[in-house]
Amino acid sequence: MVPEDVLLEMARPQDHHRTAGFKEMFKDVTEHLQYLFQTEGTCLTLTGSGTAAGEAAIVSACGDGQDHKVLCCRGGKFGERWAEICEAFGIPHVNYDVEWGHGAKAEVIDKMLSEDKSIDTVTLVHSETCSSSVSDVQAIAKVTRKHDALLIVDGITAVGTLPVKMDDWGVDIYFTGSQKALMLPPGLGFLAVNDRAWKRIEAGNAHYYYNNLKKYRKSIEKNDVPFTPNNQLIRGLQKVLQGIKERGLEAVWAHSALMAKATRAAVEAMGLKLFAADPADSVTGTWVPEDVDEGKLRKLFRSKYGMQIAGGQGHIKGKVIRVSHMGYCDAFDTLSVIGALELALNELGHPVELGCGLAAAQKVFAEGL
Amino acid sequence: MVPEDVLLEMARPQDHHRTAGFKEMFKDVTEHLQYLFQTEGTCLTLTGSGTAAGEAAIVSACGDGQDHKVLCCRGGKFGERWAEICEAFGIPHVNYDVEWGHGAKAEVIDKMLSEDKSIDTVTLVHSETCSSSVSDVQAIAKVTRKHDALLIVDGITAVGTLPVKMDDWGVDIYFTGSQKALMLPPGLGFLAVNDRAWKRIEAGNAHYYYNNLKKYRKSIEKNDVPFTPNNQLIRGLQKVLQGIKERGLEAVWAHSALMAKATRAAVEAMGLKLFAADPADSVTGTWVPEDVDEGKLRKLFRSKYGMQIAGGQGHIKGKVIRVSHMGYCDAFDTLSVIGALELALNELGHPVELGCGLAAAQKVFAEGL
Repeated sequence: MVPEDVLLEMARPQDHHRTAGFKEMFKDVTEHLQYLFQTEGTCLTLTGSGTAAGEAAIVSACGDGQDHKVLCCRGGKFGERWAEICEAFGIPHVNYDVEWGHGAKAEVIDKMLSEDKSIDTVTLVHSETCSSSVSDVQAIAKVTRKHDALLIVDGITAVGTLPVKMDDWGVDIYFTGSQKALMLPPGLGFLAVNDRAWKRIEAGNAHYYYNNLKKYRKSIEKNDVPFTPNNQLIRGLQKVLQGIKERGLEAVWAHSALMAKATRAAVEAMGLKLFAADPADSVTGTWVPEDVDEGKLRKLFRSKYGMQIAGGQGHIKGKVIRVSHMGYCDAFDTLSVIGALELALNELGHPVELGCGLAAAQKVFAEGL
Repeated sequence: MVPEDVLLEMARPQDHHRTAGFKEMFKDVTEHLQYLFQTEGTCLTLTGSGTAAGEAAIVSACGDGQDHKVLCCRGGKFGERWAEICEAFGIPHVNYDVEWGHGAKAEVIDKMLSEDKSIDTVTLVHSETCSSSVSDVQAIAKVTRKHDALLIVDGITAVGTLPVKMDDWGVDIYFTGSQKALMLPPGLGFLAVNDRAWKRIEAGNAHYYYNNLKKYRKSIEKNDVPFTPNNQLIRGLQKVLQGIKERGLEAVWAHSALMAKATRAAVEAMGLKLFAADPADSVTGTWVPEDVDEGKLRKLFRSKYGMQIAGGQGHIKGKVIRVSHMGYCDAFDTLSVIGALELALNELGHPVELGCGLAAAQKVFAEGL
């Protein structure tokens, strides 16, 4: 959901990206991105999907024909994607397969890095939206620092939702996209890169083009980008980031946590089972009761209640539904989803006591709001 | 310039890209793209700049570790870019350096392909915006077909402005971006790929990821894309393409040609000199008289007359101004620019007879409109 004021901001006539006006706006956006990632590192904006940003991080840091080896933590579709990119670009890598719904564990990574000293890079998904689970990035960053490995974190559903403290924790590259917590349409990727990562990138000889971070670094010094940027989205981004700054990141993080806590309480009060063992506050995944058809459930949401909920992906397709807590949704949106879920389950022959989920959520809101 | 109705269309709430509604819209857009490129080949939409589309074409067709060799026609900044991409990805290539302002010549390409039988691919810029020149794509395509070479054409300032007949001419990959003749903000790249090109791409083993066309081909069969697309721009695109279809491509092409012809007549009537020997109808480049400061001229346009004209790039920076005829500009916009140019030149101490440029343009419009 893109907020209306942001949509209308983007509908205003645009500055061309080679004008002083654009550069001034872009400078402001870049400073706000540093706040968002909690870093003094370089913040870069790419025109592309989040996947382009992830590819840029991985190929720029590891795809230089030098002897790098990557440990890819895979506990869902996106963790798998970063391993596929290593595969596609011929970057040596090993996989750490995490059970879906669980976070990657610092102690396992510690062990793997101890046993194979040639691993010098770790890719990690902060919040795996497809399995609605979260990893403890702070603990994992301690381990990668101990082993002097570079940590690249996919923050696509985390940045702007969950606490992210890049510099404090010691993450080397964090990246995200425009379409989740930043409440914009898809089309921009963002990377925050610290000095350790730049040392690696600059020392290497990554010979890529569009997704080569060296090019972006050179341009950003002049508040510019190497390739024609989506200036419309950058304009919307400025509005969103200014809003986040005004509210304060701590308040934004606390808000998502509260929405997630209320949703989990409601789900459990309805007798449903959460999917994730390590649930993320960005999205809540719930097993669909066995006597309910997931397709019918989502269709009912869409056609009768005018709401979108997501289904499962991969091997849990058709078995799990997911409710987002990212961006532009408040307590009353959350109550609406819970209310619809109660009604839909009853309609589909899986009776739950009407109001029981809502009451459980209300208790959380009464304490937390 | 993005038309207001398109800006407002993009400000409407958006369908998520995994919905049936989005897929239906995307199917319609893809069919309209076939009309735009005049092809029955596959039309693909990438989220990224035009450079991403060009990289996708080149690495997918040539970057597969097989023995390809590219002839890069370079007569400006963009021709140079496609050679840089070959360089970056380690693709063997030779350059055909064309004097700025001239189009690449079919007979030179014929000779180069005859002399080096290992060349199996040619990259060409249809309209080099930085040098405001045009190449005869049709004649060059005849040559590449004769030598059984693949022809990849950058149509970024050509498609939707100049006549483009991909199938008739025998171009194998044509690509463009959203921000020129398609009157949208930047952020989408489009490629049209014929069967000859697919044969090459599928036989190869290009091991890239984000810009790997094999992935896009698989998705488009289901009216889908492999990575989260900019659905907002695709929505705007649908509106633009429907408008182009209604007007008819021939009318669109004739319109740009008329604007360019009127501008050239005006420039010559004012005693100024056109930059290009082979001028494109997408943009008119004019030498700034030696007694006029180009920076002051452009600033006057901006601050006093509220108009944007472009300067030169590369070695002609500060010496040339460029006026666009792409997209959303009509005869009266063209008269406005000519009128401002007359006033500005007089103000900056280079007297031209007031109205002489306008009168010359009017004669063209009276005949052509």
